[in-house]
Amino acid sequence: MDLHNLGVIAAGLAAAGAAVGGGIGNGVLISQFLAGMSRQPELESRLLSRMFLGVALVEVMPILSIVFAFMLMGK
Amino acid sequence: MDLHNLGVIAAGLAAAGAAVGGGIGNGVLISQFLAGMSRQPELESRLLSRMFLGVALVEVMPILSIVFAFMLMGK
Amino acid sequence: MDLHNLGVIAAGLAAAGAAVGGGIGNGVLISQFLAGMSRQPELESRLLSRMFLGVALVEVMPILSIVFAFMLMGK
Amino acid sequence: MDLHNLGVIAAGLAAAGAAVGGGIGNGVLISQFLAGMSRQPELESRLLSRMFLGVALVEVMPILSIVFAFMLMGK
Amino acid sequence: MDLHNLGVIAAGLAAAGAAVGGGIGNGVLISQFLAGMSRQPELESRLLSRMFLGVALVEVMPILSIVFAFMLMGK
Repeated sequence: MDLHNLGVIAAGLAAAGAAVGGGIGNGVLISQFLAGMSRQPELESRLLSRMFLGVALVEVMPILSIVFAFMLMGK
Repeated sequence: MDLHNLGVIAAGLAAAGAAVGGGIGNGVLISQFLAGMSRQPELESRLLSRMFLGVALVEVMPILSIVFAFMLMGK
Repeated sequence: MDLHNLGVIAAGLAAAGAAVGGGIGNGVLISQFLAGMSRQPELESRLLSRMFLGVALVEVMPILSIVFAFMLMGK
Repeated sequence: MDLHNLGVIAAGLAAAGAAVGGGIGNGVLISQFLAGMSRQPELESRLLSRMFLGVALVEVMPILSIVFAFMLMGK
Repeated sequence: MDLHNLGVIAAGLAAAGAAVGGGIGNGVLISQFLAGMSRQPELESRLLSRMFLGVALVEVMPILSIVFAFMLMGK
């Protein structure tokens, strides 16, 4: 692996974007799960299953970006 | 593939932007679906269908950006 | 270690992204735990366990990004 | 120390990310502590202890990023 | 001081991060102090003292980043 190539910077950028998108996206999403659970505790299991649906949707783009990072770094 | 060209950095930037936009956008959107569902649980199915409409709209630009990233990297 | 290579910039980028994603994501998440706890103090232990589930989900991408940073820097 | 190397830019990036993640993350977190305290002033000490737990969790990634910044700069 | 070295870019990045983190973090924090004070005006002095505790915690990382900026620039 030649570290003078520019692919490693691209990998760093893609990993940074994935961390920001996945971290903040999940944080905002799950924060409202906690808020809903504190309002209606009896809905917890239904809210939890929808929350995981949401986590999956949030993670689509960050996971694609991490895959990009691996592809760019591994070359 | 020549890793000394600048296209790979552009691909990394595009992937990072897609991850940030898709992750945070979906996180905020779906968090309010959970908030609405905990307030009016009987509206869940209607809220869910609108949420998916919202997810589709949120993803338009991140998907375009990922497509860009593939085009820029594959050269 | 040759600091003229570009891997160190990539490591800095990945570490910065992890700090932003992990910091803001956890901040937003735990802030709603405090809000829920001040609304229903008797739910505290259940909210706390879900909060830690959320912290784990939030940290997935930042931790991956930190691992990337180490890999890119250590070369 | 040779300031023409690229490690200093990496250090600056990592420090910037730590400042953004730690600052905004803690700001959002502690703002909800104030909101909860103004709603239920008698819960203040319990909220305060959980807030410090949250500050610790928020700071994990920014502190890692600052450590990265020192490592990258000190070389 | 040789302004053609890369340290000045690093200093600019670190200072920018400090401004973003400190500015937004404190803004969110103090906004909830105002919200809490408008809800329970008699709690003002206690909220104010906790707000300053919060400002101190918010500023930890931005101040570290500014110190980094001085170190990187002063070389």
